[in-house]
Amino acid sequence: MTDIIHRVGIKAPISEVYKALASVEGVASWWTRSTTGNSAVGKTIRVQFNSKEGKEIGSMDMLVKALEQDKKVHWHFTGGPEEWIGTDAVFNLHAEGDHTIVLFGHRNWKEAVEFTAHCSMKWAIFLLSLKNLVETGEGSPSPDDIKIDNWN
Amino acid sequence: MTDIIHRVGIKAPISEVYKALASVEGVASWWTRSTTGNSAVGKTIRVQFNSKEGKEIGSMDMLVKALEQDKKVHWHFTGGPEEWIGTDAVFNLHAEGDHTIVLFGHRNWKEAVEFTAHCSMKWAIFLLSLKNLVETGEGSPSPDDIKIDNWN
Repeated sequence: MTDIIHRVGIKAPISEVYKALASVEGVASWWTRSTTGNSAVGKTIRVQFNSKEGKEIGSMDMLVKALEQDKKVHWHFTGGPEEWIGTDAVFNLHAEGDHTIVLFGHRNWKEAVEFTAHCSMKWAIFLLSLKNLVETGEGSPSPDDIKIDNWN
Repeated sequence: MTDIIHRVGIKAPISEVYKALASVEGVASWWTRSTTGNSAVGKTIRVQFNSKEGKEIGSMDMLVKALEQDKKVHWHFTGGPEEWIGTDAVFNLHAEGDHTIVLFGHRNWKEAVEFTAHCSMKWAIFLLSLKNLVETGEGSPSPDDIKIDNWN
């Protein structure tokens, strides 16, 4: 099994970071504008990625596996690219001084392939978007995300 | 063993990307301005990180283990944070259409710790700096790098 892991620190109260992770509106403001579904535990959120011209590039369905107020958000991917199905994204939060620390893991990849390396880089871009959203009020969700290679 | 892996695509000839990775001047233009030493195979490069006020934050020594023109740069870390010693950074290059694809790995971490997650995020930031350097002529090497948490 292979994991992508990242650490970011956000200068904001933990409750604001949690809100951006635990709600459909929050996710739509840093990951992809086309986020729909229900963010309650046991329900499914769909994230869709479009080109700037509005053409669909891809989508994922994720089951909200666990929510712990101001502590943890856990998604389990049930639809999307083959490599993502069965993987988990987990955000663990804690406070350190004036920062909220996000320990992020996209865990349980079957193997480390070139697409994993692409996704690792994209997660970093989206976590930066999350940081900017909470700190400044403005994220860069898809399709306004930074493009990092010829895949996206 | 744990690996950090990232993929970036740079709209530029492969030779320009290689030059930015295989020379002291190149590394100083995207990773840290304070890069010194000798970039020949078997020699050692030192990268030092300073605060904006000029105070040293940390440094690493890396042995240039392999250089393959327009294909590969391989560093082996011999000094620096304890977790880095004995690890390897490898950049594999290939062309795809008008992009040079960089497959990056910071390999052979003894374990995946919180500092690994921090470094994964920072490598993404510096690879973005490399991309910007080669595409636009301007990177953001330390101390002008994007800060991502309370550690750096």
